[in-house]
Amino acid sequence: MDESSETAPLLIPRSRRNSNARVSWNQSPYIGGQLEILERRGSVSDNYEVNNLGRRDSSINGPHFGLDFESENIPLSSDRRGSTQYNAINSSSRPRSPLATTIINAPLREARSTRVLSDRFESLDYDLVENTLLLKEEAQQTFVRVNRIQTQKWFVMFLIGAVVALIADMVVIVVDEISEFKYGRLRDLFDRCSTTSGDCLVQPLGLWILMNILPVLIGSVIVVYMSPAASGSGVAQVKCFLNGVKIPQFLRVQTLIAKIVGMVGSLTGGLAVGKEGPMIHIGAIVGAGISQGRLGPFDFHVFENFRSDAEKRDFVSAGVAAGIAAAFGAPVGGVLLILEEGASFWNQSLTWKVFFCSLVSVFTYNSIIGVYLDRPGDLSNSGLVNLGVMDNMSYLVYEIPIFLLMATFGGLLGAIFVSLNVWLTAFRHKHITSRVARVLEVVLIAAVSATVGFLLIYFIDDCQMMRDVTPQRTVQMLCSDGEYSTMATMLFQTSEKSVRNLLHDAPGTYKPITLGAFVIAYFFLACWTCGSWIPSGQFIPGLLIGAGWGRLVGIGVMRLMPGVSIDPGRYALIGAAAQLGGIVRMTISLTVILIESTGNITFGLPIMITLIVAQWIGNWFNSGLFDVHIKLLRVPLLDWEPPPLSSHLTAKDVMSYPVYTLKTTESVGAIVDLLHKVTHNGFAVVDEGELRNPLSDEPDTFGQMRGLILRSQLITLLQAKVFDQRLDIAAVRKRLNIQTFRDAYPRFPSIKSLNVTEEERRYTMNLTPYMNHSPYICYLTTSFPRIFKLFRALGLRHLVVVNNRNQVVGMVTRKDLAKFRVEMHRGKIKVEELHISNELRATTLTKGFP
Amino acid sequence: MDESSETAPLLIPRSRRNSNARVSWNQSPYIGGQLEILERRGSVSDNYEVNNLGRRDSSINGPHFGLDFESENIPLSSDRRGSTQYNAINSSSRPRSPLATTIINAPLREARSTRVLSDRFESLDYDLVENTLLLKEEAQQTFVRVNRIQTQKWFVMFLIGAVVALIADMVVIVVDEISEFKYGRLRDLFDRCSTTSGDCLVQPLGLWILMNILPVLIGSVIVVYMSPAASGSGVAQVKCFLNGVKIPQFLRVQTLIAKIVGMVGSLTGGLAVGKEGPMIHIGAIVGAGISQGRLGPFDFHVFENFRSDAEKRDFVSAGVAAGIAAAFGAPVGGVLLILEEGASFWNQSLTWKVFFCSLVSVFTYNSIIGVYLDRPGDLSNSGLVNLGVMDNMSYLVYEIPIFLLMATFGGLLGAIFVSLNVWLTAFRHKHITSRVARVLEVVLIAAVSATVGFLLIYFIDDCQMMRDVTPQRTVQMLCSDGEYSTMATMLFQTSEKSVRNLLHDAPGTYKPITLGAFVIAYFFLACWTCGSWIPSGQFIPGLLIGAGWGRLVGIGVMRLMPGVSIDPGRYALIGAAAQLGGIVRMTISLTVILIESTGNITFGLPIMITLIVAQWIGNWFNSGLFDVHIKLLRVPLLDWEPPPLSSHLTAKDVMSYPVYTLKTTESVGAIVDLLHKVTHNGFAVVDEGELRNPLSDEPDTFGQMRGLILRSQLITLLQAKVFDQRLDIAAVRKRLNIQTFRDAYPRFPSIKSLNVTEEERRYTMNLTPYMNHSPYICYLTTSFPRIFKLFRALGLRHLVVVNNRNQVVGMVTRKDLAKFRVEMHRGKIKVEELHISNELRATTLTKGFP
Repeated sequence: MDESSETAPLLIPRSRRNSNARVSWNQSPYIGGQLEILERRGSVSDNYEVNNLGRRDSSINGPHFGLDFESENIPLSSDRRGSTQYNAINSSSRPRSPLATTIINAPLREARSTRVLSDRFESLDYDLVENTLLLKEEAQQTFVRVNRIQTQKWFVMFLIGAVVALIADMVVIVVDEISEFKYGRLRDLFDRCSTTSGDCLVQPLGLWILMNILPVLIGSVIVVYMSPAASGSGVAQVKCFLNGVKIPQFLRVQTLIAKIVGMVGSLTGGLAVGKEGPMIHIGAIVGAGISQGRLGPFDFHVFENFRSDAEKRDFVSAGVAAGIAAAFGAPVGGVLLILEEGASFWNQSLTWKVFFCSLVSVFTYNSIIGVYLDRPGDLSNSGLVNLGVMDNMSYLVYEIPIFLLMATFGGLLGAIFVSLNVWLTAFRHKHITSRVARVLEVVLIAAVSATVGFLLIYFIDDCQMMRDVTPQRTVQMLCSDGEYSTMATMLFQTSEKSVRNLLHDAPGTYKPITLGAFVIAYFFLACWTCGSWIPSGQFIPGLLIGAGWGRLVGIGVMRLMPGVSIDPGRYALIGAAAQLGGIVRMTISLTVILIESTGNITFGLPIMITLIVAQWIGNWFNSGLFDVHIKLLRVPLLDWEPPPLSSHLTAKDVMSYPVYTLKTTESVGAIVDLLHKVTHNGFAVVDEGELRNPLSDEPDTFGQMRGLILRSQLITLLQAKVFDQRLDIAAVRKRLNIQTFRDAYPRFPSIKSLNVTEEERRYTMNLTPYMNHSPYICYLTTSFPRIFKLFRALGLRHLVVVNNRNQVVGMVTRKDLAKFRVEMHRGKIKVEELHISNELRATTLTKGFP
Repeated sequence: MDESSETAPLLIPRSRRNSNARVSWNQSPYIGGQLEILERRGSVSDNYEVNNLGRRDSSINGPHFGLDFESENIPLSSDRRGSTQYNAINSSSRPRSPLATTIINAPLREARSTRVLSDRFESLDYDLVENTLLLKEEAQQTFVRVNRIQTQKWFVMFLIGAVVALIADMVVIVVDEISEFKYGRLRDLFDRCSTTSGDCLVQPLGLWILMNILPVLIGSVIVVYMSPAASGSGVAQVKCFLNGVKIPQFLRVQTLIAKIVGMVGSLTGGLAVGKEGPMIHIGAIVGAGISQGRLGPFDFHVFENFRSDAEKRDFVSAGVAAGIAAAFGAPVGGVLLILEEGASFWNQSLTWKVFFCSLVSVFTYNSIIGVYLDRPGDLSNSGLVNLGVMDNMSYLVYEIPIFLLMATFGGLLGAIFVSLNVWLTAFRHKHITSRVARVLEVVLIAAVSATVGFLLIYFIDDCQMMRDVTPQRTVQMLCSDGEYSTMATMLFQTSEKSVRNLLHDAPGTYKPITLGAFVIAYFFLACWTCGSWIPSGQFIPGLLIGAGWGRLVGIGVMRLMPGVSIDPGRYALIGAAAQLGGIVRMTISLTVILIESTGNITFGLPIMITLIVAQWIGNWFNSGLFDVHIKLLRVPLLDWEPPPLSSHLTAKDVMSYPVYTLKTTESVGAIVDLLHKVTHNGFAVVDEGELRNPLSDEPDTFGQMRGLILRSQLITLLQAKVFDQRLDIAAVRKRLNIQTFRDAYPRFPSIKSLNVTEEERRYTMNLTPYMNHSPYICYLTTSFPRIFKLFRALGLRHLVVVNNRNQVVGMVTRKDLAKFRVEMHRGKIKVEELHISNELRATTLTKGFP
């Protein structure tokens, strides 16, 4: 690690740095801890570079007014550590705030790689571009058409729900059949073996390992070589997407295929994974795919009105909810998860549509699975992860303290799980970098899973008498006749069934030693599997670990109070909730999901209390699993609320300055050059008629604000060659409507692929009809919390900062806000200003989500 | 009704009218149909009047630039009906939109009173005022203090949950005891009578009527004379409050007392009402009260940081959720109802706090009620409205069509209920206007309820053999020995118990004739009671009516398919959902509430489907009960989304113009005069250094935008006499901090109560440190949907409109947006521009909510 990496923490709001300082800072890139292998890319700046095309001289080299950026030339040399610069600059005009102090006091050597945001994650445009074309389209619309689009929306919601459920049905049936075959064979082999000598165990062990490795290998190869974005669960990516961050490859068709195949592989391969996370991802892809009326390269030219980030988000939300609904039989839980993890501005009519989609999903899933299970017409069965209906359970007030202790334990164990996984992820990023290594790791996990299982069965003596009430399938293993091995029974079935058995089996079914050993082994296996290169859900492993130790607690309570009739399954349920809550830190949605999938409402209250406490305890130490991985990947996620005590920061402090602007009628050459030069996605459109006030103490301006135009729009315009000097410009303009932009969505060509001749470069383009003529703006004095709320509530991507004559002075983007992050650690609040790095390789964007 | 009332529909966006036109329009006030008795108040304008204090000459009588308002002098005389003015004005610059057409085509004679918004409803300030004082306070804060405020918040949430639950416990115990006594007496009397001749029935009937009248009379008198805002359920008011509309008296302590007493009265009086609605209102008051650290006139000086509309909203939300949680034992349902009906911008940390509050509420409620019911420590009992746990219910796919038909019927019946109630409300507003009449109506309802009950028992022969499985208490009535009257049994208990019995009683308990007669009678009684001057919830009546006809359907299905074992209780549940859904039109929250209160998850799916269909069918005809009443009361509620096809409307069209502005340093006299003259609550603060462009086609401007100041702030400043010319001004300024403003919240004195001497009038005030220096603003060209989203997502009250030199040109308030309303009627969309009237008497603001 480069020593100089610790030298340039962003202690000074960027706008206060002069361009020299910024360049030097750019040229000594921050090496992000151990997680990322960095390339030096000195030439592409991560800031809005000094520019105003066509007026470059006046803005850069011309006179500076007011706040003199030259005179504050603070070289960020390597010996400036933890200095009080931030205050020195701030104290003049504003009252000192503890925020500043905290940022300074954060010891620099603690700066791990999670304190960096990547510049490579692009944002989504959840704000509608309102330009003349849109008005034109609206003018041609009628209420009949509005109705038709609404009907289409409901129809698409129906389709999404049905398709997600069909995929869930398919997966569950395939996995069931394969598992049945696999574990049937294994059971037979092991049972045959118990009658003869121990040596014959080698053959079934070998077969077990083989049967684990084979499907996992197939799944992993497809994921690693075809679509790395399909690895992990997908929950973290969904969260990023709904927050407004684009995750590359995340919604592609090949990701869908890889996810389904990989999921079947990991499930039948006996890994410690679940299928709910992948179902969420599958739901998201189906939602995006169907609503866009496209399948890979094929365009069906339907639902073209839905081709925008904002519309797509609604359908992705619905797909995610449908995925959860199918996975857990929990339609309300699905809607709530979207709400708890994703949404910011929530809307009643969208809620209804998402709810409808969830319902369709559950309904379709149940109808088909009913036929498969030979109970056609019975819709009461629910969800992939049917935890079984828990009836007639009640609890007493003195049990609440026990539940609270369990919640605390679950929170602790969850925090340990997350920390271990973070360490593992760091190790993976550093050492397991080649494709082959990634596949091999997964294969190794599969082999170890089988071996550990075998060792558990072999060394733990837990033979139980066959009784009336036994699990569906028993395995005799090494036990005498008339007995069976509970450990083998637990291992020789899918994880969901194990959870169900732990919740429902009669008291006395499990020995404490069995549960203890199983929980410990499964905990480490699950932690290892999480984040490896295969689709894997974390919900079922969490539930299974928790149900295991929860039942252990139940057995303990039974022994302590022999007189009272206690059902250990009840403690298993609380344990499951505590463990899963400790890992993922959700509350409301998880409560409802657990209620819906156990079909038991009586336990709602203790489950909720358990989840809330587990979350509190876990958050004391670290963030939830998905949040931690989002941080590790340096995603510029916007939190729910602005950091506390940040009101003293204003737009002036956080904005990118200077900015690139375009004139309302701009030369084609200038536009092409700009797009080549920078990677920014939005540009302020200005008029030149400036009214500079030499006495003002404000930053230099870049022209009178007129509107905002996106890179994608500029590229579409260049492609259509809407140049004012063309002879047929009227016809070209007429042809160009909002549909042209929708057709190009979402994969706009790169600027490099466009051909612009030398003659065309001298032409001009009138941007007025295409730009967003009234984007949301803010003043230089607007405080950070206000800007934050604006971004969060309206899903903005760019916010133009104007002075009080409405002249453009800066630009705020998501990263400028996301870099101020609150850390709550062991009860203390801290606000950090993160570093924004463009030094992340593009391929790493898709990797490593849990 | 005055004929001239139909003459001045607002077909022309107000900004296009010149001031003459507006004055004449004010002087022929719109008489709002039959519902309101109007006072003429010609002097107070409902618009921002032409003004710019201190520069009055230049702005009103001076030269007009650009859009010449004089030349568009359109007299709104009484013969202008349904003209095409709107288009004539619009067509010049913008493409024609069907919205314009629709507004025109709306026949004027249809303009009923629901097409009017009242100007008297004030908005709440959900947007934080960020001024120098706030920054100063923040600068003195530390993260420790931030943590402390957070802890306080959790603590207040705990208190709210506990207090709401205690009130619920108290109410339920009191009502239970009184009802037990009352119905016990009645049962005895009637049973004794059945053995003798029929004449002796007069005495029990008389007693019944008396026992109904007495508590109802007490409740009604208290409500009518002490706090009219306590009548009805409170759900509609909560919805308005969360939307940002202030409902007078709604959150006062006397309203709480009146609500509790009235609720006990209406419940023990045997009216067709429930207690969940009132519990919601009680929760809201408790939430507001505790968080403000005040009880009526007493100020405990605690939680002073929470004294703002924005903070209060969070606590009110929590209180409402706690109310539902206690009423139904449905903590998740409570959170969801807040979400479905109230929230716009939803926030994870708030969700958790609200959820926690709900949990505390359920927990406290159950603990105490467990002691009351002699089952201490058993927390499984849940909710005021315990519908009883429905176990072992399953359903088959062929039942779904039956459920759908029931949903359709429920939706229809719900729409009829709403329409009848609207008619009744109109009647009430017109004829039952005196206090005595209001009390008498309620008493009449109580008497009629008893009489109808008696007639039902008397005329309907439904004697049933006593069997093993019978309801808890049976009444023999006119039946022979060994038999009992099911009708009497249904009537001689609280409504909740009747619902529970309908869901749980064994097949064959009820005769169809009993159910039919009961449903019809109860339907009309409930509809009559709804909206009368006593606290009344609509949930239980809805459930009871639905459960009645649902069970009837169940009996029908049983007869049609004699071979199949069918539990009619299942159909009762679906019927209950359909009926309630048809009346209130909620979906997700109601599903969860029903799931939570029946403790049965298996039926989740059919309940959801039923609710969605019932909502669709009902919405085909009218809005939900609460929405209709909100419209009848002319509340300027902002919908979830802007009306479709409204993009062609811009800020220019909807803003109030001209506006009143204040200078950054303004004379005290001018401020006092302004506050006396107008009732507006927000004023733009400007600098005079204008840069008018005589060539611009924009409206006249009112100075360079500097900030926004609220009436309440101005009054506090005047009270503190922060006048620049005072000798001790430095000391005064120092003393004045943000706490001064918090202490004054929420009951700022009237401007009339302030004493300003003639000398002080000549002083000036510097508004800069107190104004919000960077309010959200919009451009003249900003489209209606964008403005709408800004208001809805951020909870704004005022939005300053600036031209593209950042000069103030207009002001948009909630009413300017709320007046464009979408009507969906029988599948057709229509957008109306409503009239804004200031002609509503202040007293009527608090009345008539259902």
